[in-house]
Amino acid sequence: MDFEKYFSLGGGRIKSSKIREMMKLIGTPGIISMAGGMPDEQHFPFEQVQLIIEAWGPAKRAAALQYGATGGYPPLLERIGEYVAASGISMSGQRILPTSGAQQALQLLTRIFCDPGDSLLVEVPTFIGAVAVFAGYGAEPAGVKMDAEGLIPGELERKIIELRSSGRTPKFLYTNPTFQNPSGLTMSQGRRDEIYSVCSRHDLPIVEDDPYYELYFEGGPADYRSLKARDRDNRVLRVNTFSKILSPGLRLGWIIGEPAVLARCEMAKQGEDACSSSFSQVVAADYLAAGCVAEYTAKMRAIYREKCRLMLSCLEREMPEGVSWSTPKGGFFIWVSLPAGLESERVLLRSVENKVAFVTGQPFHVDGGGTNYCRLAYSNSSAEQIEEGIRRLARVIREMLPG
Amino acid sequence: MDFEKYFSLGGGRIKSSKIREMMKLIGTPGIISMAGGMPDEQHFPFEQVQLIIEAWGPAKRAAALQYGATGGYPPLLERIGEYVAASGISMSGQRILPTSGAQQALQLLTRIFCDPGDSLLVEVPTFIGAVAVFAGYGAEPAGVKMDAEGLIPGELERKIIELRSSGRTPKFLYTNPTFQNPSGLTMSQGRRDEIYSVCSRHDLPIVEDDPYYELYFEGGPADYRSLKARDRDNRVLRVNTFSKILSPGLRLGWIIGEPAVLARCEMAKQGEDACSSSFSQVVAADYLAAGCVAEYTAKMRAIYREKCRLMLSCLEREMPEGVSWSTPKGGFFIWVSLPAGLESERVLLRSVENKVAFVTGQPFHVDGGGTNYCRLAYSNSSAEQIEEGIRRLARVIREMLPG
Repeated sequence: MDFEKYFSLGGGRIKSSKIREMMKLIGTPGIISMAGGMPDEQHFPFEQVQLIIEAWGPAKRAAALQYGATGGYPPLLERIGEYVAASGISMSGQRILPTSGAQQALQLLTRIFCDPGDSLLVEVPTFIGAVAVFAGYGAEPAGVKMDAEGLIPGELERKIIELRSSGRTPKFLYTNPTFQNPSGLTMSQGRRDEIYSVCSRHDLPIVEDDPYYELYFEGGPADYRSLKARDRDNRVLRVNTFSKILSPGLRLGWIIGEPAVLARCEMAKQGEDACSSSFSQVVAADYLAAGCVAEYTAKMRAIYREKCRLMLSCLEREMPEGVSWSTPKGGFFIWVSLPAGLESERVLLRSVENKVAFVTGQPFHVDGGGTNYCRLAYSNSSAEQIEEGIRRLARVIREMLPG
Repeated sequence: MDFEKYFSLGGGRIKSSKIREMMKLIGTPGIISMAGGMPDEQHFPFEQVQLIIEAWGPAKRAAALQYGATGGYPPLLERIGEYVAASGISMSGQRILPTSGAQQALQLLTRIFCDPGDSLLVEVPTFIGAVAVFAGYGAEPAGVKMDAEGLIPGELERKIIELRSSGRTPKFLYTNPTFQNPSGLTMSQGRRDEIYSVCSRHDLPIVEDDPYYELYFEGGPADYRSLKARDRDNRVLRVNTFSKILSPGLRLGWIIGEPAVLARCEMAKQGEDACSSSFSQVVAADYLAAGCVAEYTAKMRAIYREKCRLMLSCLEREMPEGVSWSTPKGGFFIWVSLPAGLESERVLLRSVENKVAFVTGQPFHVDGGGTNYCRLAYSNSSAEQIEEGIRRLARVIREMLPG
């Protein structure tokens, strides 16, 4: 039968993330992909997970395979609470809701805050997976400029005032403050104070999505202290994930914030998947309890730092004049700027023919810009792939530069 | 801060499932709960899962812990295809989408088909978890009566015509044809032919939610042949789950149906959780490949049949005149009808004081009826709990009957 006439308007708003579409292009054999923002799959803590599962007695076995409460497996809530508190966030007046990855956290928050036509504020560039969610609910993100220290407070304030004076109510600021996806930028500590003040002055909720903060290459936790750790007014809804400290395949993240907000998220989640994987929740609770995060992140910091250094040195060696790039202090990505006039989408098509892939910058830009940017992930590539991948990409770019 | 002014209208439609709310009431110590529709947690196939995980080499370990495609882990799609084909469903022109439980399948289908105010058709009574999803998207279910053979074709046709003549377009028929939750009713094979014909004549999509069909106590697969197996026009979107053939804690289900519909579901799912647990998907693929379903369901059929028989004999022995109940041919539930005037909600409150719990019938009724029904689950109770639980419940009912 023909279902066309039955589809909803709401469903029609949902667009495929351009990254996911590009991924299909990229799935050709022999290609070196620096596209997906995936953790290094050579170093997942599989043995720890296996030891955890082997140690389960009857109660944990049953808990792992049975339905759980939508609000989460109680021991997991406790362990996350301890983990979060150790990063300088006060747990007083807070609630935690486990989610099926940080992606679901963004989706739940968007659903409970945004109706079609609502506005919200995002960085330029911003995380593409969030842009897709916002679009799916008909929300209209307005972009705020960044500089080397992250979001510019004056620009944020100007945008809030501009939107409000045109009768619109931005629902929240969405920010990815540390080793941002895609730009790699980190909001400085001073900036975090200022951005928080602007939001406080204008009574704007903040959604702080901070998946990479443990994966720093320099400095220490004090340099990446969260907006949530400054949250006098309980306006920050902080989204985190086990994807970078354990495994993305377990699909487990969480939101911490105001209980009245999380109660709404929990109700939405009931209908969406009833609960996150109980199996994943019991594994994650035991993983936190055993102190595995510190061990794994220490190891991965060294591994990612090395990969990043290697990619930077390859870029230095291979890229022609006019190409520039970020120097990340952590995370998964290098953000490359091509010479004016060289569009990254054209470069991608030629690159795929030459068996190397990345993600183009434009889809990360809600203002339509970014057409000459490329996001390169070093996180899941071997040293050989990084060397050869950058060599291939540089060759393509050199060939495409105006003679 | 006060978030009230920022919440969306869309989010405001979401209501907590009444079962989930009752569950909180029920969590008091010493209570015998026949409320939740949960599999027997004494008999989950944990050892098989553990053997599967132990056998994984590097590729499966990485696949289980890494992000996966939204469309699913390819070996899982193949194994589900074989499993489905073995139940008499033609895979020609079909696509399969894994979902985070059958709950997510219902949510995705509702989202892509229903805008606020849209109508759809459901059985009276119907699955409460679906009612909550429909409400969350503002869809308005119209109830169709059932008799001992399930949905009444003439009633369905009348409702379709009535809705259409009042300018409304029901988006689909939602049916739970086998050992229905909550009534335990099974749509007869002849009825399935007739219901399919009505939908075909009126070009209505069918969402067939069939979680219990493997858990029959009499007859065999031919007696529970699905609507999907009759699907000449590809109008059936069939929802299934691993919850009853492996584990609900893995949160894994699937939809099989028209690729154009599943492509929309996949796009929605991208933004909702990116992919279902890779870990669960790799486990489930290997579980299907090893033929564990047949072994587990054979064992569980015998266990559930025994529990059901025991509960029926306890009801027979303990219940006063005027109380009647269904005799299930499979599944998890007995549906109890109280004498007129005795409301199950009042009985529940008194029952909880007397340390026994069940689910009231009204929330399963989109027509506001069902106030004198109780749903009793025998699936996750021990023999002792069933004996003592029915004894307590019967005592409460006897005390509440007009003298």
